[in-house]
Amino acid sequence: MTHPPLTELPVSPSDPLDRDRYPVDPWRLVETEFSADDLGRAETVFAVGNGYLGLRGNLEEGRDTFAHGTFINGFHETWPIRHAEEAYGFARVGQTIVNVPDAKLIKLYVDDEPLLLTVADLTEYERALDFRSGVLERCLVWRTNSGKRVRVRSHRMVSLPDRHLALLTFEVTVLDHDAPVVISSQLLNRQDGEDEYHVRAHAMGEDPRKAAKFEQRVLQPQVSIGKEERLLLGYRCTNSGMTLAVGAHHQIRTDCRYSMITRAEEDSAKVVLRVDAKAGQSILVSKYISYHTSRGVPARELSDRCRRTLDRAVERGADRVLAEQRAWLDDFWARSDVEIHGQPGLAQALRWNIFQLAQASARAESTGVPAKGVTGPGYGGHYFWDTEVYVAPFLTYTSPPIARNLLRFRYQMLGAARRRAGELNQAGALFPWRTINGEEASAYYAAGTAQYHIDADVSYALSQYVAATGDTDFLDREAADILVETARLFADLGFWRANGTDSFHIHGVTGPDEYTTVVNDNLFTNVMARFNLRRAAAVVHEMAERDHGAYTRLVKRLELQPAEVEEWDRAADAMAIPFDDHLGIHPQDAYFLDREVWDVPRTPHDKQPLLLHYHPLVIYRFQVLKQADVVLALFLQGDQFAPEQKRADFDYYDPITTGDSTLSGCVQSIIASEVGYAELALSYYVPALFVDLADLHQNASDGVHVASTGGSWSAAVFGFGGLRDHGGVLTLDPRLPCSWEALTFRITIHGLRLRVHVASASVQLSIEDVPGDASLDGQAGGQVELSVRGTPVVVRPGEPVVLEMDTHGPVIDGSPSSLALTGARREDGTIITAIVPTA
Amino acid sequence: MTHPPLTELPVSPSDPLDRDRYPVDPWRLVETEFSADDLGRAETVFAVGNGYLGLRGNLEEGRDTFAHGTFINGFHETWPIRHAEEAYGFARVGQTIVNVPDAKLIKLYVDDEPLLLTVADLTEYERALDFRSGVLERCLVWRTNSGKRVRVRSHRMVSLPDRHLALLTFEVTVLDHDAPVVISSQLLNRQDGEDEYHVRAHAMGEDPRKAAKFEQRVLQPQVSIGKEERLLLGYRCTNSGMTLAVGAHHQIRTDCRYSMITRAEEDSAKVVLRVDAKAGQSILVSKYISYHTSRGVPARELSDRCRRTLDRAVERGADRVLAEQRAWLDDFWARSDVEIHGQPGLAQALRWNIFQLAQASARAESTGVPAKGVTGPGYGGHYFWDTEVYVAPFLTYTSPPIARNLLRFRYQMLGAARRRAGELNQAGALFPWRTINGEEASAYYAAGTAQYHIDADVSYALSQYVAATGDTDFLDREAADILVETARLFADLGFWRANGTDSFHIHGVTGPDEYTTVVNDNLFTNVMARFNLRRAAAVVHEMAERDHGAYTRLVKRLELQPAEVEEWDRAADAMAIPFDDHLGIHPQDAYFLDREVWDVPRTPHDKQPLLLHYHPLVIYRFQVLKQADVVLALFLQGDQFAPEQKRADFDYYDPITTGDSTLSGCVQSIIASEVGYAELALSYYVPALFVDLADLHQNASDGVHVASTGGSWSAAVFGFGGLRDHGGVLTLDPRLPCSWEALTFRITIHGLRLRVHVASASVQLSIEDVPGDASLDGQAGGQVELSVRGTPVVVRPGEPVVLEMDTHGPVIDGSPSSLALTGARREDGTIITAIVPTA
Repeated sequence: MTHPPLTELPVSPSDPLDRDRYPVDPWRLVETEFSADDLGRAETVFAVGNGYLGLRGNLEEGRDTFAHGTFINGFHETWPIRHAEEAYGFARVGQTIVNVPDAKLIKLYVDDEPLLLTVADLTEYERALDFRSGVLERCLVWRTNSGKRVRVRSHRMVSLPDRHLALLTFEVTVLDHDAPVVISSQLLNRQDGEDEYHVRAHAMGEDPRKAAKFEQRVLQPQVSIGKEERLLLGYRCTNSGMTLAVGAHHQIRTDCRYSMITRAEEDSAKVVLRVDAKAGQSILVSKYISYHTSRGVPARELSDRCRRTLDRAVERGADRVLAEQRAWLDDFWARSDVEIHGQPGLAQALRWNIFQLAQASARAESTGVPAKGVTGPGYGGHYFWDTEVYVAPFLTYTSPPIARNLLRFRYQMLGAARRRAGELNQAGALFPWRTINGEEASAYYAAGTAQYHIDADVSYALSQYVAATGDTDFLDREAADILVETARLFADLGFWRANGTDSFHIHGVTGPDEYTTVVNDNLFTNVMARFNLRRAAAVVHEMAERDHGAYTRLVKRLELQPAEVEEWDRAADAMAIPFDDHLGIHPQDAYFLDREVWDVPRTPHDKQPLLLHYHPLVIYRFQVLKQADVVLALFLQGDQFAPEQKRADFDYYDPITTGDSTLSGCVQSIIASEVGYAELALSYYVPALFVDLADLHQNASDGVHVASTGGSWSAAVFGFGGLRDHGGVLTLDPRLPCSWEALTFRITIHGLRLRVHVASASVQLSIEDVPGDASLDGQAGGQVELSVRGTPVVVRPGEPVVLEMDTHGPVIDGSPSSLALTGARREDGTIITAIVPTA
Repeated sequence: MTHPPLTELPVSPSDPLDRDRYPVDPWRLVETEFSADDLGRAETVFAVGNGYLGLRGNLEEGRDTFAHGTFINGFHETWPIRHAEEAYGFARVGQTIVNVPDAKLIKLYVDDEPLLLTVADLTEYERALDFRSGVLERCLVWRTNSGKRVRVRSHRMVSLPDRHLALLTFEVTVLDHDAPVVISSQLLNRQDGEDEYHVRAHAMGEDPRKAAKFEQRVLQPQVSIGKEERLLLGYRCTNSGMTLAVGAHHQIRTDCRYSMITRAEEDSAKVVLRVDAKAGQSILVSKYISYHTSRGVPARELSDRCRRTLDRAVERGADRVLAEQRAWLDDFWARSDVEIHGQPGLAQALRWNIFQLAQASARAESTGVPAKGVTGPGYGGHYFWDTEVYVAPFLTYTSPPIARNLLRFRYQMLGAARRRAGELNQAGALFPWRTINGEEASAYYAAGTAQYHIDADVSYALSQYVAATGDTDFLDREAADILVETARLFADLGFWRANGTDSFHIHGVTGPDEYTTVVNDNLFTNVMARFNLRRAAAVVHEMAERDHGAYTRLVKRLELQPAEVEEWDRAADAMAIPFDDHLGIHPQDAYFLDREVWDVPRTPHDKQPLLLHYHPLVIYRFQVLKQADVVLALFLQGDQFAPEQKRADFDYYDPITTGDSTLSGCVQSIIASEVGYAELALSYYVPALFVDLADLHQNASDGVHVASTGGSWSAAVFGFGGLRDHGGVLTLDPRLPCSWEALTFRITIHGLRLRVHVASASVQLSIEDVPGDASLDGQAGGQVELSVRGTPVVVRPGEPVVLEMDTHGPVIDGSPSSLALTGARREDGTIITAIVPTA
């Protein structure tokens, strides 16, 4: 995604959603018209989930789908990776999230005619995902072939407070005539049946972002029970041995006469209602659903757990389940809402993104957050660095207990990471680039295992968490181990070079930008590794002073040597930071500027994203970025760069950044804001908000781009809000876009919730009431200290602070100064040879 | 293979063969004792073949084997390559040579006791491969459990003059008693049965040098006939559609009474003889075998071709078939023999290597030469650059018609190579790194597709061929097209950089050394590309002058523009050649010297070869070579480097070259000879001679290292013989080892055979008689011109020339000066950090 030239930018960037079909609504995503043209996108943006369980927004009726999908975070099958050519240390065990049995399915027949939305005559239709109730609601009126009008109204939710529970309601009313009605509610194992998704995925061929396809039965049937209103199925994964049970309990409420048949087979179970429906009399089916999974507990025992979950829910009843959901979300929004005033379309889109963060993380306990949350099978359900760099900041500042869960998951992986470092011939621990079970599953090491920066990303996220919460308990018992082991990795991975002055180099790694790989002294990696080394040394010293017992245990546990701690600081101080004097910029790696320059603006649209149209060898030869790399370092390690350096770097990289990754736009937006490209910042931000809603990357059908949803929050709070927390010190320097009236956000600091309201001429700071559960630590003494544009400010409960502001940062007219692209044009017109002005 | 310190070297390097078991013999490889301990190696070194058909040296009796194998050059099955992570342009179609039905099998039962060599009581045993008769002969006396002595004598040959014919004889004599004897001669499809090889290959796991394993039936039965003495089986490959027929005809000669049963099934066919053997009366079975294959001709038609081949051979009889074989080899040795005088062990080993070249190439018509010839399934039966750089020079100078066949095969691939260049976004043609059918089959691009130098290697070989033969017909009609299309590739692949002076750079490629990959300005690639560009331009100009018609056709055929031809010369003249002023050496690539230095001498043996014990990411970070890279450029483009440059480069690279590839030792030997490391040259040469004979790389069982056999010839002729042919001009500057009395070799130049006899104090040059078939061109006017140490010499038939020599090149005492390896030792003791003294 390159930005249009600034001269063409509207003051208020246009909203890419079709607002006739998706009208602006502050708290809901509303669809007013059904279309079979973009089922994949719709299934993703209307998915519901709780970070453990996710149901794609498939139609209740089952048919007419891009991809049926029900996913449980971490529930995966393994398979042997067959490398076409082998080498030592390549990832061996593939891991792929399983499409677990579908409990969403409720088929409807009137006069034996099935309801199929793609062909049905719908006289009324609305579907809405409500961010406050946490419910997906659909309401339609169907005119059957025989002319009868039937109202169908359904609700769907996955419980945020109750990890293992989902609830569906399905209400049918034949409006004008009597009619025989059949409602068939099912559990269906689609993983081992004909799955439309895989048919399509196969046909799409070369897209590495899809999940792998299984070649054999994945779910081995273990339990199959159907008795009256209740269905239970249980399975065991063929290779991974993971087990699962799913149960459904049906409540039927109607004045019409009906009979019920219950059947269960290995791969399906169903409750079929045959109803003599009377005109105007509703038939309401409430379907309580429970999933339980395990790494090895027998499926039969899991099915007992489903029973108990269902019993409790049925006892409470649907209304109370819905009320609990709303209460959870009330609390969530109180902590997490970000308000864009004066731009209701953007405000709505941002809330959708924040709601996705809740859906992706709320109950991700002892797991990470997959790249697609629980909304689709993209990237195989794997965890990447996305969690630490794009999602953890949001959670740290709004839901610290969830942030802690995610970071603890890395701690639980530490053993596997130590083994992986050994396989790669290094000391310390190396976290896998992509994984579910802790083992490296990245089969393409150049854009996978080589991204050693993941170690520093984890250290960054946990340092941010500890600083924001004061959670020294987590630091002393677990986080310190990660800091030490990752510091060891970097100290061992790098090497010293005597060259006048000693410098410390890290070779053969890949940075966040995957359009160059296996490079030397990648700026991002080196800057983040430097942080990691320093932070580890500082924490060791700080523990020694603060809690000698904890320090002694750490030293013993990790066989820590004072000499190695000193070495970390030495290596950090001598870390090679590529800088080009001539251009006055930081090269992305030691030799980045020696490459030809790719002419991004002149690359035809049908050749984008580059990764789907050019061999890696071609892409790697050029100065062209898939995503922000140096620019991300300017954000995460912003106190390590002078403002004019940031401006120069941004100017250099912006024109050669394709944004082929959705991880890019939000970061470009943050630094554009900081250095003064106000309109450009917005022109990156708006597409980031609508990546999935408007399917701007043409793959929303694979699931929500969760990192981008986190980036949407970050770009609001850190970009336009201007918040920074380098060294654990909060600073604020807002950059409110001219077209926005105001921006309001909240962050939780040491248990206190700070409300920040940025208007064009003032910043208002106040402490909001905090419910108990978000408070981990009261040691901050009931106040939040921060620096607003260099002015120290203390905010106490009941004592709001208002600061006047006449400007919002520097303002630069025009667009980033583009490279002088000169030289010979190639045959296909897409690539040019550039004269690179450096020695 | 690192060389031992010079001080420990014996003057005459010790012979690594067990000479009790394998006594020295000038023209045979003789095994005096059977052992089951090294079956794999023995099956390879006793394999027989003719470049089309190859039979591994399996025992006649079938059992007790490492890997049964019968291979036909180019006969392959295809399979979809499943990349664990996909990307655009990755190779899609795997190609693997098929283990075709086994016709070697002749089982023997005496008193119903089977002959099994591993358990049999053998009172006499000898097996010998005769390089002059082209026959593998085995003779043994077996004492059965009941105490009867049985003599078994067998012959095995694959016809060099008759591409589709093989002949086995099997003679049994019960020496002292009568006994019932059963001889069961079979054809057996092992590819789709239990194949010991694959069982072992699977168990070995991560070795990329093995062939891929099929997961389904490969050979679909089409023909199955057994009638009296004759058997015929026909098949079609499931995916590739290639077809095959194999036939066998049996002649039985005995005075004993016998009966015969013939049976044919889908996967086997057999002739079973039941003989009432009388003491002292021999039973002789002659088994004529024929294979025919095709890309699509029905197997039934191929079985007719087998019938005709068999009929003709049976008509001629075994004696005449054997005589034709000897006549072919008499001619071969007259053209090709290299004599090492005074070192009979080395002389024998060199002849074995040269014999392997005949076996690998003689009838390789419309195919390349696989990395293992037709002796094993290693590397999947693929063709690499090995043919052009390691085998073609031998053929060009001894068997020009075969060289022409191999180079024409590249011409036949040109269409696929053009398509592949397009996939890689380049103009011209890019030959596949590994292939059977012309399509790229390299699934690991970093050490595969990225080796763009293969284009220049092909151009090099065909230029050498044209210069040595004067075959302008081939040049004008076919070779010129290759030169033009490869020049186009390099001109398009590289780019110009204005940096004071304009220079031409080639980025993102891999050189011959696979321990660094995807580098910029690889010295070998750039030097060879420069040659390619210049040669293409020169040929275009030369054609325009010599044959305007041919030139006009070329211009039209290739839409050749004068401007592009000029551009080739411009690019060649401006080609970036990395050079480090401080060290005075050519870095292997632009940034090679920035890497850490791997401490090769201190790497434990159980961590070698590195590729089987370290992740590529680890290896790639270091200055460590799998094989000669710069040093190979010093040889192939020797006129582009000054002698002191060669010495400095060799000194630098020799200590960091592991020789983990067998392509390395012979090249190190050649340049060691040239720069003056006489003893070192020999210490590289001797292991190269015995790579397979003594299994020095522990994988002789996969098949003969054909490139190394070619390298053995090259190191003798170019290394010790001191021959060069830069620019088509022959020069001679011998380097006879002190421990050799003399060296004699022959090369064919424009149809004349020049005999070169190098002794310690003289060089004798003479023209030998030439049989008609080696003469392609008489235009040289009946004389060979060359320059001996700068002195022009003309050699005419009947006018030998003797030149006195008092020295053999420079002599350097000591070993190559090693890098100053300093810095911190790592935990595992294998890797050190070196201070690299460059800016």
